[in-house]
Amino acid sequence: MSVELKDLAPLLLKKERASGDVDPAVLTNMLRGGKTANDRRKQLVKVIEQHPVLSDRDMVYRNHSERYLFGLKKAFHYVKMVQDGSYTAEEQATLLNALGEQVPFDLHREMFIPTIESQGTDEQRAKWLPLASSYRIIGAYAQTELGHGSNVQGIETTATYDKSTQEFVIHSPTLTSRKWWPGGLGKTATHAIVIARLLPDGKDAGVQSFIVQIRSLDDHKPMPGIKVRDIGPKIGFNAVDNGDCSFHNVRIPRENMMMRYAKVLPDGTFVKPKSDKLVYLTMVRVRAVLIKKLGERLAMATTIATRFSAARIQGRKSDGKGEFQVLGYQNQQYALFPLIAISYASQFAGSVVLKMHDAALESIKSGDAGFGAMLAELHAVTSGLKAWVADKAIEGVETCRRLCGGHGFSQSSNLGHLFAEIAGANTFEGTSDVLVQQHAHYLLKTLASQLCSGASTQFLNDKKKFANVALRCKAQSSEDFGNFNVFLEAFRVRATRSLLSLAGIMKATKNDSNACMILMTKASTAHTEMILLEHFVRAVEKLHIGPEKQALSDLASLLGVWLITKSLGDFRQHDYLSSSQVNLVLKQLMRLLPIIRRNCVLLTDAWDFTDFELNSTIGQYDGGIYRALVKRVEDEPLNQHEVTIGYEEYLKPLIRSGL
Amino acid sequence: MSVELKDLAPLLLKKERASGDVDPAVLTNMLRGGKTANDRRKQLVKVIEQHPVLSDRDMVYRNHSERYLFGLKKAFHYVKMVQDGSYTAEEQATLLNALGEQVPFDLHREMFIPTIESQGTDEQRAKWLPLASSYRIIGAYAQTELGHGSNVQGIETTATYDKSTQEFVIHSPTLTSRKWWPGGLGKTATHAIVIARLLPDGKDAGVQSFIVQIRSLDDHKPMPGIKVRDIGPKIGFNAVDNGDCSFHNVRIPRENMMMRYAKVLPDGTFVKPKSDKLVYLTMVRVRAVLIKKLGERLAMATTIATRFSAARIQGRKSDGKGEFQVLGYQNQQYALFPLIAISYASQFAGSVVLKMHDAALESIKSGDAGFGAMLAELHAVTSGLKAWVADKAIEGVETCRRLCGGHGFSQSSNLGHLFAEIAGANTFEGTSDVLVQQHAHYLLKTLASQLCSGASTQFLNDKKKFANVALRCKAQSSEDFGNFNVFLEAFRVRATRSLLSLAGIMKATKNDSNACMILMTKASTAHTEMILLEHFVRAVEKLHIGPEKQALSDLASLLGVWLITKSLGDFRQHDYLSSSQVNLVLKQLMRLLPIIRRNCVLLTDAWDFTDFELNSTIGQYDGGIYRALVKRVEDEPLNQHEVTIGYEEYLKPLIRSGL
Repeated sequence: MSVELKDLAPLLLKKERASGDVDPAVLTNMLRGGKTANDRRKQLVKVIEQHPVLSDRDMVYRNHSERYLFGLKKAFHYVKMVQDGSYTAEEQATLLNALGEQVPFDLHREMFIPTIESQGTDEQRAKWLPLASSYRIIGAYAQTELGHGSNVQGIETTATYDKSTQEFVIHSPTLTSRKWWPGGLGKTATHAIVIARLLPDGKDAGVQSFIVQIRSLDDHKPMPGIKVRDIGPKIGFNAVDNGDCSFHNVRIPRENMMMRYAKVLPDGTFVKPKSDKLVYLTMVRVRAVLIKKLGERLAMATTIATRFSAARIQGRKSDGKGEFQVLGYQNQQYALFPLIAISYASQFAGSVVLKMHDAALESIKSGDAGFGAMLAELHAVTSGLKAWVADKAIEGVETCRRLCGGHGFSQSSNLGHLFAEIAGANTFEGTSDVLVQQHAHYLLKTLASQLCSGASTQFLNDKKKFANVALRCKAQSSEDFGNFNVFLEAFRVRATRSLLSLAGIMKATKNDSNACMILMTKASTAHTEMILLEHFVRAVEKLHIGPEKQALSDLASLLGVWLITKSLGDFRQHDYLSSSQVNLVLKQLMRLLPIIRRNCVLLTDAWDFTDFELNSTIGQYDGGIYRALVKRVEDEPLNQHEVTIGYEEYLKPLIRSGL
Repeated sequence: MSVELKDLAPLLLKKERASGDVDPAVLTNMLRGGKTANDRRKQLVKVIEQHPVLSDRDMVYRNHSERYLFGLKKAFHYVKMVQDGSYTAEEQATLLNALGEQVPFDLHREMFIPTIESQGTDEQRAKWLPLASSYRIIGAYAQTELGHGSNVQGIETTATYDKSTQEFVIHSPTLTSRKWWPGGLGKTATHAIVIARLLPDGKDAGVQSFIVQIRSLDDHKPMPGIKVRDIGPKIGFNAVDNGDCSFHNVRIPRENMMMRYAKVLPDGTFVKPKSDKLVYLTMVRVRAVLIKKLGERLAMATTIATRFSAARIQGRKSDGKGEFQVLGYQNQQYALFPLIAISYASQFAGSVVLKMHDAALESIKSGDAGFGAMLAELHAVTSGLKAWVADKAIEGVETCRRLCGGHGFSQSSNLGHLFAEIAGANTFEGTSDVLVQQHAHYLLKTLASQLCSGASTQFLNDKKKFANVALRCKAQSSEDFGNFNVFLEAFRVRATRSLLSLAGIMKATKNDSNACMILMTKASTAHTEMILLEHFVRAVEKLHIGPEKQALSDLASLLGVWLITKSLGDFRQHDYLSSSQVNLVLKQLMRLLPIIRRNCVLLTDAWDFTDFELNSTIGQYDGGIYRALVKRVEDEPLNQHEVTIGYEEYLKPLIRSGL
């Protein structure tokens, strides 16, 4: 058969690349922290790609049990690989990331060990860390319960101190107190950090952390008094065994409470913690890393969707000569290009808050008195950003999937898997609804202060100017909305006014937070979008004049006008934008789309994902999407039999019933 | 253990029901077409629930191969059940729907048989229908190809007529011409309707339908020249074998072309079709049914999310006494209640277009000359509605999932499965981008006409009034936005102006559709939202005065103000709404939320889904969500072993490495 003929797709993608003027390598260095870092990253990805087990990408053919078993296999081989000691901690994380799915040991590395490191005393660290880092014990982090997720203060598991034996009694007093969701706890972990309500002498001393042995080190059976199981299949994370665990008066030694800060003395005296700012800062860091990571996941999706859209033709041209590239459709551009911009913006903003974190850490370590204000701002900004980026990344990945039509719906596009793996991101590490409130409360407090010195709140020093209802946007042409000063002012005006509206309703409702949640969300969103644009603009300003600077400048402009169109009500408040200026905004947006189209493949190429990382038939670098789709079909287990499974039992009796 | 104590969840849900004043049965009759119809529906669901095989709901534990095999098993038992002849066609559809997943025979019923019925000659129907309806042959509908989905005109498979043998030669000339996606074709079908480009004598006579035998009726092996496989796992529909099929000069008799309309005579003469309005109308009907079905799927999700939100507590009250019900949070209400309204609106609008379809069908059959205009309007409105409802239902189900936090992320919530099964809905039966353009083109044509007589376009007779830039909304208080006339005028103004903006840019770009796609989408959306609200209002007006009428009236108002806030830029155009009226809209929205909250559980109860249908641990009618979650864990295959699979191979060597 000559079916291999006439595959235009690779040629179309090649042509699309040739039409741009951006050097993706320049942008790669910007996104990936320099050439050296990126080269090393790719080397590490190659290590996974070439490993006989770790290179596996057949997760889509497996059910939850099969995925768990293979996840354990991967985790084992991963440990063997890193135990030779030749990889730094950061490199180990890169290797793990390249697996393309979560595995059962992840929380051991990400939560169990770090908690002992940050909350354990020197003795506790000396005892537990060598065991944990050599995987002679495998830990989980058991915080959430059946009845309580985001409200840690509602935790019901109890830890009652028994002075007579110097033990804590860990107990699950209610149905809803069962530990529920901890990754790795269901079938794998031998130990867990259990977050429980401390009752040193019957009185409530708040929630504290305890190391509890979950399974025997001899035969891996659950310890007496512990009932532990896997909670079953989930949208994502199906290679991980999330746990359902209840404790029936389980006794642990007093020394198993994490005592770097709070303490229980042998006689049962509870000693309150002095400062746990470092613990707090760890949480901030996790969120900052997550912002970058979510941006990268979105970038994977936009890379796939952009390449597919360039290689795919669909719909006759009006002149009857051939068909349109899907990438040429205005609606496709309108849906896709802002997502490319968001992936860049998340990377820029994530990097900035990570640097802020490092500075705060230094500041705390050096005993700087100013760290309190710095930490509060960092916490608020990170909360708002995490909530916003998680929402947008999840929706964005799903949008990319839709933009690839039927082929996006195929698991071989990898867009479904990418979605499943990040779909939980506005729940874990802080539910969006809670984060935006924390952010908004910070902003309210700052608004009330005399001088706003934080980098992200300085604009509030001009609040009178921005709140002035006589203020009008100066744009007179659509191109004026490409001027950073014009649209940054618009976002500052909007952030100020959203915050003032919130302050007004807070006052009117006598600080009834619940009656103000919608406006809190709006205020948080308005501030976050302003910050994202500011960081984007700063990143552009750092580039040398050239096509890359121009392309990123256009992308920043697009993000600006697109965000304006999404919240026109805000920007039109008190007619800061007039009705006719709104038309200019839309005109600028439509003007930018074909301009960005010229470089859009290169802008996504700049993330420099390898085909192995993307793991997508339709996101292949060379555009060979159709050959890849057909080739992938060979691996499908159902295709290993010419006559289908089930034929004798369920088809033959019907088909041959007339004979 | 006393862990069964203190489960407040059922009590909270009970209390929530008691706080409302609506009689859900009144609304059930409205939503389900009367008590008799609903009772019959529930009887049929019970039939499935009590069947030893068809009641299976363990799909979440299975991989694609396992789901396919079980799907085949279900399909077989379903056929056995309906072959006794005691169920009408509509009842059979209800039974099938109650399976909760698509099975491999669905397209045989939904596309293969109907195509023969509508496009086959009397002889063809007499030959094929008895075989198909008794499942002695099993058919697929092979339209889409690897390279072409929504653009049917781009299909590359060829059917060349060979006069000498009076046969068609079916051939796949290119890589991209492979048939790709047809449900049931991969491993199951013995025959398929193949859509191919007819080349009667080397010249192109457009796409036509042919019956092609795919597999031997003796041993189910693919016929000579046919290569057919399953395309692999997808986001949803994993119990179905979607096909990848190529033809290498496969010969079929001339009589296998569907010849009710177009014909190829024995000598190769091509006879053009006269009228295929009925075929066209069938497509419209499929979409109308889909609108209702998508609304129902969304209703399942809102029922689950509403019950969960009522039964779930999270977050301390400011007075320190207990915790908030999640349903009490303003953000939760703001995200959830408009979705309840959309599910109702889709049901009302879907019913109306179905009735329009029936009227059009009668009109065509009776030879009424006016059916052309009626059909054009019906097609346009159905296109716009289908695109809008699909988008909103998909997003809505995903929103409901997020609103249930971690428990929503568990497959046992069923929200992930519901999402997967409808996620393809803005691609299949018409891609949204294409549908909104068809809708918009119809509106443009209507705008240009002297008199707009269609029910959905009559408002355009007042276009001068609505377009007048001096026109202002009359609302003076937030409650004024609860007045149907006030907000319906607002939506008519917006629909008119969106359409005029589109007409303007079409003229400016000399009818360059692609440069106007964003505005086409806006015009389609504006018209669709107006129609949805009109139908909702009409449905409310039909109710007797009482709590149900009041509750639905509030729901319609909520939908109205919520939709305004989502597109404030449109409504503020030329200051039809002033900046301060926008505040009134938001105030009305916030005012309505606690009012609707009182009845929200009853409003979702009114859909009258059984627990079996919802198949959700967290959507149980009695609120026993925590017991259901824990109970479900027992079924998880991983929990059938106390010591985990993989322990000996992957855990023991690490854990005991120090010994």
